[in-house]
Amino acid sequence: MAGSDKIALAFSGGLDTSVAVPWLIENYDAEVECVVVDVGQGLEDLDGIEERARAAGAAGCHVVDVRDAFVEEFIWPTLRASAIYGRKYLLGTAMARPIIAREVVRVARQVGATGLSHGCTGKGNDQVRFELTFAWLAPDLDVIAPWREWDIRGRKDAEAYARRAGVPLPPARTSMYSRDRNVWHISHEGGPLEDPTTMPDQDMFLFSVDPRTAPPEGETVEIGFENGTPVSVNGERMSALALLERLNEIGGRHGVGRVDLVEDRIVGLKSRGVYETPGGTLLYAAHRELEQLVLDRRTLELKDEVAMRYARLVYEGRWWGTEKEALDALIDVTQRYVNGSISFFLCRGNLSVAGRSSSTGLYREEYATFESSSLYDHADATGFIRLFGLPYRLAGQARLEDVQETGAEPERAPDPGEMAGSDWLD
Amino acid sequence: MAGSDKIALAFSGGLDTSVAVPWLIENYDAEVECVVVDVGQGLEDLDGIEERARAAGAAGCHVVDVRDAFVEEFIWPTLRASAIYGRKYLLGTAMARPIIAREVVRVARQVGATGLSHGCTGKGNDQVRFELTFAWLAPDLDVIAPWREWDIRGRKDAEAYARRAGVPLPPARTSMYSRDRNVWHISHEGGPLEDPTTMPDQDMFLFSVDPRTAPPEGETVEIGFENGTPVSVNGERMSALALLERLNEIGGRHGVGRVDLVEDRIVGLKSRGVYETPGGTLLYAAHRELEQLVLDRRTLELKDEVAMRYARLVYEGRWWGTEKEALDALIDVTQRYVNGSISFFLCRGNLSVAGRSSSTGLYREEYATFESSSLYDHADATGFIRLFGLPYRLAGQARLEDVQETGAEPERAPDPGEMAGSDWLD
Amino acid sequence: MAGSDKIALAFSGGLDTSVAVPWLIENYDAEVECVVVDVGQGLEDLDGIEERARAAGAAGCHVVDVRDAFVEEFIWPTLRASAIYGRKYLLGTAMARPIIAREVVRVARQVGATGLSHGCTGKGNDQVRFELTFAWLAPDLDVIAPWREWDIRGRKDAEAYARRAGVPLPPARTSMYSRDRNVWHISHEGGPLEDPTTMPDQDMFLFSVDPRTAPPEGETVEIGFENGTPVSVNGERMSALALLERLNEIGGRHGVGRVDLVEDRIVGLKSRGVYETPGGTLLYAAHRELEQLVLDRRTLELKDEVAMRYARLVYEGRWWGTEKEALDALIDVTQRYVNGSISFFLCRGNLSVAGRSSSTGLYREEYATFESSSLYDHADATGFIRLFGLPYRLAGQARLEDVQETGAEPERAPDPGEMAGSDWLD
Amino acid sequence: MAGSDKIALAFSGGLDTSVAVPWLIENYDAEVECVVVDVGQGLEDLDGIEERARAAGAAGCHVVDVRDAFVEEFIWPTLRASAIYGRKYLLGTAMARPIIAREVVRVARQVGATGLSHGCTGKGNDQVRFELTFAWLAPDLDVIAPWREWDIRGRKDAEAYARRAGVPLPPARTSMYSRDRNVWHISHEGGPLEDPTTMPDQDMFLFSVDPRTAPPEGETVEIGFENGTPVSVNGERMSALALLERLNEIGGRHGVGRVDLVEDRIVGLKSRGVYETPGGTLLYAAHRELEQLVLDRRTLELKDEVAMRYARLVYEGRWWGTEKEALDALIDVTQRYVNGSISFFLCRGNLSVAGRSSSTGLYREEYATFESSSLYDHADATGFIRLFGLPYRLAGQARLEDVQETGAEPERAPDPGEMAGSDWLD
Repeated sequence: MAGSDKIALAFSGGLDTSVAVPWLIENYDAEVECVVVDVGQGLEDLDGIEERARAAGAAGCHVVDVRDAFVEEFIWPTLRASAIYGRKYLLGTAMARPIIAREVVRVARQVGATGLSHGCTGKGNDQVRFELTFAWLAPDLDVIAPWREWDIRGRKDAEAYARRAGVPLPPARTSMYSRDRNVWHISHEGGPLEDPTTMPDQDMFLFSVDPRTAPPEGETVEIGFENGTPVSVNGERMSALALLERLNEIGGRHGVGRVDLVEDRIVGLKSRGVYETPGGTLLYAAHRELEQLVLDRRTLELKDEVAMRYARLVYEGRWWGTEKEALDALIDVTQRYVNGSISFFLCRGNLSVAGRSSSTGLYREEYATFESSSLYDHADATGFIRLFGLPYRLAGQARLEDVQETGAEPERAPDPGEMAGSDWLD
Repeated sequence: MAGSDKIALAFSGGLDTSVAVPWLIENYDAEVECVVVDVGQGLEDLDGIEERARAAGAAGCHVVDVRDAFVEEFIWPTLRASAIYGRKYLLGTAMARPIIAREVVRVARQVGATGLSHGCTGKGNDQVRFELTFAWLAPDLDVIAPWREWDIRGRKDAEAYARRAGVPLPPARTSMYSRDRNVWHISHEGGPLEDPTTMPDQDMFLFSVDPRTAPPEGETVEIGFENGTPVSVNGERMSALALLERLNEIGGRHGVGRVDLVEDRIVGLKSRGVYETPGGTLLYAAHRELEQLVLDRRTLELKDEVAMRYARLVYEGRWWGTEKEALDALIDVTQRYVNGSISFFLCRGNLSVAGRSSSTGLYREEYATFESSSLYDHADATGFIRLFGLPYRLAGQARLEDVQETGAEPERAPDPGEMAGSDWLD
Repeated sequence: MAGSDKIALAFSGGLDTSVAVPWLIENYDAEVECVVVDVGQGLEDLDGIEERARAAGAAGCHVVDVRDAFVEEFIWPTLRASAIYGRKYLLGTAMARPIIAREVVRVARQVGATGLSHGCTGKGNDQVRFELTFAWLAPDLDVIAPWREWDIRGRKDAEAYARRAGVPLPPARTSMYSRDRNVWHISHEGGPLEDPTTMPDQDMFLFSVDPRTAPPEGETVEIGFENGTPVSVNGERMSALALLERLNEIGGRHGVGRVDLVEDRIVGLKSRGVYETPGGTLLYAAHRELEQLVLDRRTLELKDEVAMRYARLVYEGRWWGTEKEALDALIDVTQRYVNGSISFFLCRGNLSVAGRSSSTGLYREEYATFESSSLYDHADATGFIRLFGLPYRLAGQARLEDVQETGAEPERAPDPGEMAGSDWLD
Repeated sequence: MAGSDKIALAFSGGLDTSVAVPWLIENYDAEVECVVVDVGQGLEDLDGIEERARAAGAAGCHVVDVRDAFVEEFIWPTLRASAIYGRKYLLGTAMARPIIAREVVRVARQVGATGLSHGCTGKGNDQVRFELTFAWLAPDLDVIAPWREWDIRGRKDAEAYARRAGVPLPPARTSMYSRDRNVWHISHEGGPLEDPTTMPDQDMFLFSVDPRTAPPEGETVEIGFENGTPVSVNGERMSALALLERLNEIGGRHGVGRVDLVEDRIVGLKSRGVYETPGGTLLYAAHRELEQLVLDRRTLELKDEVAMRYARLVYEGRWWGTEKEALDALIDVTQRYVNGSISFFLCRGNLSVAGRSSSTGLYREEYATFESSSLYDHADATGFIRLFGLPYRLAGQARLEDVQETGAEPERAPDPGEMAGSDWLD
């Protein structure tokens, strides 16, 4: 690149990306345009960030608030897909990366940048997620990942480099943890958590109170859905972002939504993370509860399989492309019927179903009773079971013939009775 | 059947099966041999049951305690498979039916019965589960399902029939609920629960305390596994049955393991059930936590897919046969590495991971840090991401060429940027 | 039903449904409205069919030609889904049943019928397919399946009944086979085919010549697709029906498209069928060839999984409802890119790819060569393999440490080397 | 590495690996031990190969014939899994790489080598397959991939290097194609095949005759299986290798087993290959035909899903480890019943089923007829269909109520009748 080149850098204001600015200028002889994408990191992170960018040497700093789009275009689809990674993780960091990377590309196009950069380390998931979005949206631009190129190996190296480059150090991070925060969740990694045998201290948690100290009287909350999308809390319609923030407050004050997980990173390593997702946990639980009420079993089974695939796709940063769009189209059809509301009683970390309501529900009290009706004649069950079990009867018959004819070990199938003693069929 | 025929009846001692005895004698001109299979229903159910069987007219009554086999041969395999139905249900009733039916067949063979019978209604799951086991183990015997044949339509009809037949009525069931209990769980159905908008009363629960009234100080419990099978609690090795009973106590006193579910029955209806599985909930959570630590991601993914298939199989009573054996063989291989122990801190319904330990774990603290090492060079990530994302770059490239050449809508793929405004790529 | 009731009967003009007319009148005291749905059974079947219906006693006979809709609404979606049952069967009969049943319901609504009937036997698939469509479209109407009710047990019984009822016998079927024919395929079952050890006679086949006697010079055919839908043959655009008929001729004269299959019926039995689908075989092959060229591997993998699910759904008559619509929505997205054409050289039953062409293809000759380029640097492979294989290296490392430390059997994983002798690692 | 280091090199005797020997000596200051693994490349390739290795500068050359192990340990398991990649490819090259790599490691251990090397290019699949086996069996050894390191960019560069290093050039390859041959298949890539619009010339094929010129009288062949493993041809038992060679002859002389495929490489590119697998094609077809006869539908469905997973695993070189072992264990159970024989009539590229025979088959002629029996009562179908279709009837009912009550668009589900005109339900 020539000296007139520009590089768009995903900028967080932290030490890592503050150091990246002079390093990119020095090593790529380029102007650096910082892009700050607000997905709900919290005010303290964004305050004065433009000044920090310029102090680090950036030619420009572009702050974009995409919180609404983040909830509507990234979080809601993932929720509707019931996507969960590693059986527990609600994908808070994974969903944020494609939208941040998209905004970096958008700015890059506006300013005519020829390079894209980010501050992710070489051992984590986020580098993959950033660069897959870059590859999809801007295959013509160069990608520069300073952490995989430079010699800086830790906080001390970075501070030394900053001092040499005349970059003011950001307020010292006093935390032992590496954190990622947005409107959906906060994650905690590193430090004492790297030892999987230790339980996190209560003072690590930031989005939720200790369940033991939550209000003993609890609280009931009702969440309303239209076509699988959350639209109301306790009967009050509100915007996507406001709804999520409301549920974060409610869930958080009852200690709901903590997860402690050993997970498999994209790059082939296992790592341990702790997540707080109070509102998201309520939303996932409510959405699934409503689906159980309104979707037929085959559609539920299909959705369960799709959910695992969707979760891997989101986790691995493969947010764009045909597979994603195809899955979304499938899910959209299923969500036509996901209308109604679910109530939970929250108390000290516990979440109990307090009510289900849907006009499109397939559950009907009159069918559930054990009486016959025009829709269900008990006698039907006889024929059903006989044909449902026909392959069993055929195989059982073959097995029995073998036993009777040969007196020997049945060839057709092992005798399940043997599990509890071999002589009982005599 | 001739008058000398014998029918083996799965006998619970309740009103339904007590009435079935004289009904079978009258309608099939047969002797009835009652089979009482103890899977942990509770002493009150089994006390004096032989007398009740004979009082109802049975020629014989065979009480079999299969609790150990139930845990070892039916519960542990389902746990190792991580099988969960309807996203929540730990399959307590479903697992019990095949072993009960197996014992009925066993007795039928011993006494030379030509017919098999049970007291399940015509609208539920259990008739299917019983009769599939019958079809597999005894395709040569007749199956009689009184509830699908007789005119008795409810409790009053049954009591009237009992009085006419001179059968002493069992102690009146005062409960509003239809329940099924064994060493693994207790289920509650019917009555007020048929209304999905109502939350169950606290006094319905029998295996677990109200989480709000559980001891505030909580308790830590450690569960040890060998080859995926639980072997110890708090370091003390014990038998399968004792271990499960111990965990039921521990979980129950902290209010752990309640589930409220609208589920899809085999026969095509939705129904609502509430389950208490305190020990089982601890076991599932611990087993999965350990698997996350020791299994590689592809094996975990394989297991997650198998788990859904296994759960449907168990729920639908398809316990026997090639598919089941094949899945068990697959799971056995994966469980070779599931050795170690998991600790939970239980407090007022909450379950937090308090420790993980395994000598066969793939998680290692030294890999998890963000430093390079001989095993992991940060530079490797560059090549990895470039090839992992290559199809993205190719498709992105094609898309871009379309845009540039034609100025028109890209043919290759919709522009994801459009989601946030159509003009930004210019 | 009262005497003024009407029953709409799916009428084929064969002996079975001809006998059903007087039987329904006699047993249900109803008027019978025959519905003849033309899906391409062939002229000889439809000629004079109205007269035959009236001669059998029908109050009315409604002939509907739905061949275009059959191809466009039923065959094309199944083709686009790549759905194949039992690894070979292209679902010709299964796809026809829902459209026939839909037309029967349509007529029933027009004439105000209260009952629906068909002539399917009680052991086959078609009864299920008919009645599932009836259940979906007309849950309020009664369903009458004469073959499951009456005492007629075979051709002789039916002929006797016809004579008694004064119904003129349809032209005697001289064939040994039970056949189903439409614009997509012809199936052959029964008679000598019930013996799975025998090969069908050449004179059984009706849609395709013996490959051995096909023209030795062969023929090249090019099939064009738009959005996954076939639109042209040899460059000539034509209607869906005309295109299929053209390909049937071409495939048939080269002996392409025969399948001999032992399959699993919905009702739990295995049966053997032989199918001829000459045009369909060309279409499936061309469509899949084109997909390999234009879809990325993850989308292909997704489609392959969906194809199996879709095939079961079609085979089992579950054509309607959320699962089907959701799968179609998914497939629609994938088919946006399936544009282009595939040529085959056909010769004596063989089908060789003679050309592939697509403007949306992901295959590009310049990438396929073994040279480096801006898109692909050979050095990238090093990092890719190291991280792709990282879990392997970690597990291998653990295994090795076990061997070295203990000298014993590795705990982590069995030694693959043992397969070829246990001592070689020394 | 120090000068006394040794590198074990997978040696093929071709130009690529011949040049690698002096390059490794020069660049790594090491001794090179060549390992020639015979998987059936053909005599011309192995003749004089030790001399060529030494002439290139190798310190040693180890020729190992693993053809028997290749068939028994690698091909048979893949066949039993029904694994097919890209819908057509029988995995001939993919299966060979792990066994070759295993033998290289074996020799490396014997001679005390510290490095492992191979001659695969940086854009293909084989480098991944080799190095994954290396990572699993020898994570402690270095891996050197000359093609990703050196400057040699094609045949001319390599010849120049060889001349400079004094290495005698191997006999000039006159072929335009890049080929891989073993006892299972031969593959053709590159040259004119890189243009996907061209059909290969007949003289490219080496394992099979042009179907058009195959003997017009055809030939019948019977293949016998025990537990899913092929054991006999035309009733004659023979060793695995002999059996495969016999079937290659038979299939080849009738022009069976050619495949032309655009496939997705592991590294993210599409490529085009042509494969000849005459014996393998017969074996796959026979094995699947037998499975259809003896396995129940659920096991078949399970196997079909596993087959896709297994194929990806083999294609991607992930031959070792828990997932592979777990899948093999599952398949082993299913294959217990795969006993019997299948006959084909082969004629001019066509393969028709000429007979099926199994003592463990679930197909029985007496069940297949349309008569009732003790195992199958036609009346059972009524109840079966009613419950199988119950969710349909419930959903249809809800839809109908919506239409009737509101006169509006049904909320529950789109009206399938609309596909053929919106007014017909009136």
